Amino acid sequence: MTTEQENREQQLIERVLASFDGTPDPRLKELMRALTRHLHDFVRETRLTEEEWQRAIAFLTATGHATDRNRQEFILLSDVLGVSMQTVTVNNEAHRDATEATVFGPFFVDGSPAIPPGGDIAGGAPGRPCWVEGTVTDTAGQPVAGARIEVWEADDDGRYDVQYDDGRTAARGHLHTGADGGYRFWAIEPTPYPIPDDGPVGELLAATGRSPMRASHLHFMVTAEGHRTLVTHIFVRGDELLAADSVFGVRDSLIKDFVPQPAGTPAPDGRDLDGNSWSRVWFEIVLAPAG
Amino acid sequence: MTTEQENREQQLIERVLASFDGTPDPRLKELMRALTRHLHDFVRETRLTEEEWQRAIAFLTATGHATDRNRQEFILLSDVLGVSMQTVTVNNEAHRDATEATVFGPFFVDGSPAIPPGGDIAGGAPGRPCWVEGTVTDTAGQPVAGARIEVWEADDDGRYDVQYDDGRTAARGHLHTGADGGYRFWAIEPTPYPIPDDGPVGELLAATGRSPMRASHLHFMVTAEGHRTLVTHIFVRGDELLAADSVFGVRDSLIKDFVPQPAGTPAPDGRDLDGNSWSRVWFEIVLAPAG
Repeated sequence: MTTEQENREQQLIERVLASFDGTPDPRLKELMRALTRHLHDFVRETRLTEEEWQRAIAFLTATGHATDRNRQEFILLSDVLGVSMQTVTVNNEAHRDATEATVFGPFFVDGSPAIPPGGDIAGGAPGRPCWVEGTVTDTAGQPVAGARIEVWEADDDGRYDVQYDDGRTAARGHLHTGADGGYRFWAIEPTPYPIPDDGPVGELLAATGRSPMRASHLHFMVTAEGHRTLVTHIFVRGDELLAADSVFGVRDSLIKDFVPQPAGTPAPDGRDLDGNSWSRVWFEIVLAPAG
Repeated sequence: MTTEQENREQQLIERVLASFDGTPDPRLKELMRALTRHLHDFVRETRLTEEEWQRAIAFLTATGHATDRNRQEFILLSDVLGVSMQTVTVNNEAHRDATEATVFGPFFVDGSPAIPPGGDIAGGAPGRPCWVEGTVTDTAGQPVAGARIEVWEADDDGRYDVQYDDGRTAARGHLHTGADGGYRFWAIEPTPYPIPDDGPVGELLAATGRSPMRASHLHFMVTAEGHRTLVTHIFVRGDELLAADSVFGVRDSLIKDFVPQPAGTPAPDGRDLDGNSWSRVWFEIVLAPAG
């Protein structure tokens, strides 16, 4: 490439950057300038062809058209490019021993059922019963009483309730920690499932030889006054997908032992499990201070 | 930021990059890796907040939903970020004295009317008549006979024919150069107009204090066997918008003198201009060799 050509490309970037000089909001100005630099550098470094540019426009258009009230294909795109997880990472810097955050995902729903201590969030969702218990503490080890814990997960068929057409509510709920910071509830053991892969993002995964599967996980969102809200999952130790999670959500500290309990093992709360096997997991949650 | 935090962010990028290792098409792999690096670096450098990420998702969604058969809001977005012009620039490296390219824009239509030499492309579009003439040569100065010239432009009200609901065809046409490489036709003098600014891209321009106006221009696409296809505009010297074109399409070499001709000045082809003023412009087109 000639110096003249380099100058033409660089001058164009300077003109675009200067066009944002009059932006009243300094943060928006900073974001638009950074976006401009990266987009232009991407085009220049890859020597993007006009046909590739057209394919990118067509891909974004298809992604927009696949997005509706029930499906967010742009979030899915951000997820599979690891951009969602990077955003989580920069906004949840490690704080001493506080529990690590991971992606929120598209399946949280406001207004989940309230569950009493030791209650069952399954709501009829198929799956092996799983006893989940633990504590919520602050980074000094003091129990956090009255923390609100939201939990949600896919069923044994790999689907969240909102992915069914029948309006069901299942495999989600919320509860609060007791005076000792403890919590316990029944859920179902998480199983792997694919992210929705019948749209443009699925085509991208196929074209790049990637799997749409997510490692098995149970979602948590924990809120308590004076503490940073924690959005995270726990993962199942031994799951083959831990190293290949399609949205890059796995952190080592979030992999937990889901301990199988043979059929006939008595449940901690005396629940009649009808002779079926079940499992149990312990998850100590440590909240970082707010701010 | 701690080294530990830097490592977490960097390791995430490495995992996402590695996820593309199995991409069969090496060019797609290269593009996805470069895209991943730039997107993650954007998030890291700006410390993008989760709320800003959500606004970006909402903006892309709105852009997708604004795009339909008659409107391409993603192309508009690419245009106002200068990405379209950068793509044109990297794909049309300067070739000696060949005429420079600029953005294609969304208003070209296949199947424009054939215009005889000296004919009028206006087709009833309102505007001051403008006599356009010039030559098509190669970079050695030899005339290119039979080159196909497509021209299109907005009318005096700032609209292209396809922006009206009545199915009209106006202010567009095609013709061929003669044996001497010469061409001439009537058009209308270009006037400034805003890009469509009632959608998400218009909101972005407003939020950043930018104008949606394009500098006045007349579109050309010139094709001839053995030569690189030229997609360009000519601009009007003296137009106040030359330095503030909303899509960064202006190049100095494409600014031409549209010379006003007082009412009563005889037209070059004897056309009866009904006592109105008109203008004329000369545009020498030089085609680069193909390949």
